[in-house]
Amino acid sequence: MWSEAPRIGVVGATGAVGREALAILAEWGVPADRVSAFASARSAGTLVPYGTGALRIGDGAHGAWHELDLVLQCAPTAIARTIVPRALDAGAAVVDASSAYRDDPDVPLVVPGVNGHLLDAAPRLIASPNCSTILLVTALDPIRRAFGIASITVSTYQAVSGAGAKGLEELRRLTRAALDGIDAAPAAFAEPCAFNCFSHNSPVDPTTGLNVEERKMIDESRKIWDAPGLRVNPTCIRVPVERAHSESVTVVLSRAASTADLRTALSGASSVCVVDDPATGRFPTPRRATGADAVLVGRIRPVPGAPTDSAGRSREFALWLSGDQLRKGAALNALQIAHRLSARCAVHVSHRFP
Amino acid sequence: MWSEAPRIGVVGATGAVGREALAILAEWGVPADRVSAFASARSAGTLVPYGTGALRIGDGAHGAWHELDLVLQCAPTAIARTIVPRALDAGAAVVDASSAYRDDPDVPLVVPGVNGHLLDAAPRLIASPNCSTILLVTALDPIRRAFGIASITVSTYQAVSGAGAKGLEELRRLTRAALDGIDAAPAAFAEPCAFNCFSHNSPVDPTTGLNVEERKMIDESRKIWDAPGLRVNPTCIRVPVERAHSESVTVVLSRAASTADLRTALSGASSVCVVDDPATGRFPTPRRATGADAVLVGRIRPVPGAPTDSAGRSREFALWLSGDQLRKGAALNALQIAHRLSARCAVHVSHRFP
Repeated sequence: MWSEAPRIGVVGATGAVGREALAILAEWGVPADRVSAFASARSAGTLVPYGTGALRIGDGAHGAWHELDLVLQCAPTAIARTIVPRALDAGAAVVDASSAYRDDPDVPLVVPGVNGHLLDAAPRLIASPNCSTILLVTALDPIRRAFGIASITVSTYQAVSGAGAKGLEELRRLTRAALDGIDAAPAAFAEPCAFNCFSHNSPVDPTTGLNVEERKMIDESRKIWDAPGLRVNPTCIRVPVERAHSESVTVVLSRAASTADLRTALSGASSVCVVDDPATGRFPTPRRATGADAVLVGRIRPVPGAPTDSAGRSREFALWLSGDQLRKGAALNALQIAHRLSARCAVHVSHRFP
Repeated sequence: MWSEAPRIGVVGATGAVGREALAILAEWGVPADRVSAFASARSAGTLVPYGTGALRIGDGAHGAWHELDLVLQCAPTAIARTIVPRALDAGAAVVDASSAYRDDPDVPLVVPGVNGHLLDAAPRLIASPNCSTILLVTALDPIRRAFGIASITVSTYQAVSGAGAKGLEELRRLTRAALDGIDAAPAAFAEPCAFNCFSHNSPVDPTTGLNVEERKMIDESRKIWDAPGLRVNPTCIRVPVERAHSESVTVVLSRAASTADLRTALSGASSVCVVDDPATGRFPTPRRATGADAVLVGRIRPVPGAPTDSAGRSREFALWLSGDQLRKGAALNALQIAHRLSARCAVHVSHRFP
C-alpha cells in the first residue's frame, strides 16, 4: 500500500481501534521501524503485536512528536484534546479517530471515498467520523451521488466492541455466566449485554430525546455530505455481537429510481460490496463483515406502498448493511485518510509516498 | 382469572408457545382437570409440566375434540390445517396461534385490547396474529386511537425463540462453542446465530424483496386495524436474544401531537408499560420484557427535523419497544382471546365464566 511510508505514530495502541490500526499497517507492509506505538504511562514499556513481531509502547504523555510525520490518534476524546495540539505544534499531521474535533468547523471530517477531496487542501488535522456514521455514509454515498437523498431513517445493531475491548470482555464474561445459569453483574454497560439488546449506552438529551450516538449520526453525516438540511432519524441500539455493526436503513431519494438502479450504483463503489441474494437467503451479517474492508449492503428493495412513477420507479427504498466498525468504521478509515493525505502533501512529511 | 373455566385443549403442548400457554393457564388457577394437552404421536403418553403438577399428553391426531369447549391451537401451520377443521366440526371453538387462517377474510384476526369487539359476534374460529405484529399494534394502538396513524417504519430485533425451542437450543449450543473457540455449524437457521444478527429466516419474495415475516407485519396490522391503505415498512432481523422481541419504530401520525401527548396516550393503556427514563438510561430491553404481560415502550421522541406546528407539535415520532413474543406475542394473546370469547359466548360452551 505504502511503498515508502511516513513515520507514523499510533496513539491509543492498546485499545481496540489502535490495535486494528497496527494490524492494518502491518498488513500493508509498513516496516516496523516506521511505526511508533503510544499509550498511557501504565502500558509504556510493554509490547504490542505488529505483524509477526512487536512494538514497544511509548508513553503518550511524553511522545517525541517532532520525530513523526503523521499521528494516528486512536485514544479516547479526553486524551485527544491533550495530545493532538502537542503533535500539531511539533509539526506532525494528525488524523484523529476520536470525537474531539469532529464538530470543529475548521477541521475537515472525512470519509475518503465520500469527501476525500477535502484532503486536497492538505489540512494538518483531520477528524475521522463515528463508526456508525462512516458505515452509513459509505453505503449511501453511491446512491446519493446518483439520485440525491432527502431523508434517512436508520436503526443500528451495534457490536459491544464499539465500547472498546472492555465491552467485548464483558459480553464474553456475562454470556458464559448466563449459559451457566449465573446472574453476573454488568460493569462496562449499565444493562446486561448477554442475550440482550439495549438503547445505546451514551447519555440521552432530555430535550431532544436523542442519545449522543444518534446526535453524532445526524451532525456528522450532514457535515460529511455538506448537507445541513439533511433529515436523519437514527435509533442506536447495542446488540450482543462481538464485532461489526449492522444498520436497517430507509432512504427517501431526491429523484425516483428502480431497485436495479440502486444496485448498479452500489455495485460500482469500491467501498461497498452488494450481498443480496434472495434465492439463497445470503445477506449482510456482522460475522460476514468482520475483517472486511468494504461495507456489505443487501435487502435492497422499494418501501412497500410508496408512490411510484409511470416507469415503476420509487423515491423510497429500504436496505440492510453490515460493516466492521473497528476497521472501515474506525482504524481503516483513519488510515485511508492518512494514506491519501500523505499522497497529497508530501511536502509536509519527510518521505516520498506512492 | 377464570373462576370456572371451560374445558380447554392445548394443541402443540410441547412447543415453546404451547408450554407458555400451559404456564399461563396454571398461573390463572385453571384446574388441571379442565385442561388437556395434545402434541404429535411421538410425544403422546409423556408428561408436560402444569403448575406444580403435570399433564399427560394426548395424540393430537386422535383428540376427542367433542369433549372440549375451546381449543388453543399452538402447533405449526401445517398441523393447524388438519386439526382446526376437526375441532370445529366437533363443536369446539378454536383460537389458532398459527398463520393458517390469519389471511382468511372470514376469520377474525384479534388482539383483544385493539379489536376485541370482533369477539362480540362470538366467532367459532379466531386467529391470533404473528408475534411481531401483536407487539407493534399493541404498542401503537393507543397512539392510533388518539392521533391516527398514516405510516409505520419498523425494524425488528427478534429473539431466536421465535423459531421455537430449537432456535433457543441452537443459540445456546453455538454460543458456548464460539466462547470455546469452536466453529460449530448451524442447523435451525441458515446463518450462525451466536454473536450475530441476520435477516429473518423466512423466504424472501424476489418481486417485492420482502420476507414472509415482513409480509405478515404489513398484512396483519392492516387487517387488525381494518386499515387496508396503511403504509407499513418493516425490516425483520434476528438477534442473539433468547426471548422477547424488540422493535425500533418510526410512526407518522394523522394529526400532530406532542411527546407528552403520546406518553399520556400510552400510559393509559393496560397492555403497555412506559419505561422511558433518560435520567437513569432505563428503557425497554428484551430481558426486562421477558415474562411481562405488557409491551414495554420507551425512547419516545419526535423525529429530528420533522416539521412542527405553531404549538411545537409534530406528526412524526420514534419509539423503541420490547415485548415477550411467547407471552403477549403468542400464548397470552391467544388466551386473552379465549377468555374474552368465553365471556361473550357462554352459550357455546358448557360452563359459566367470570
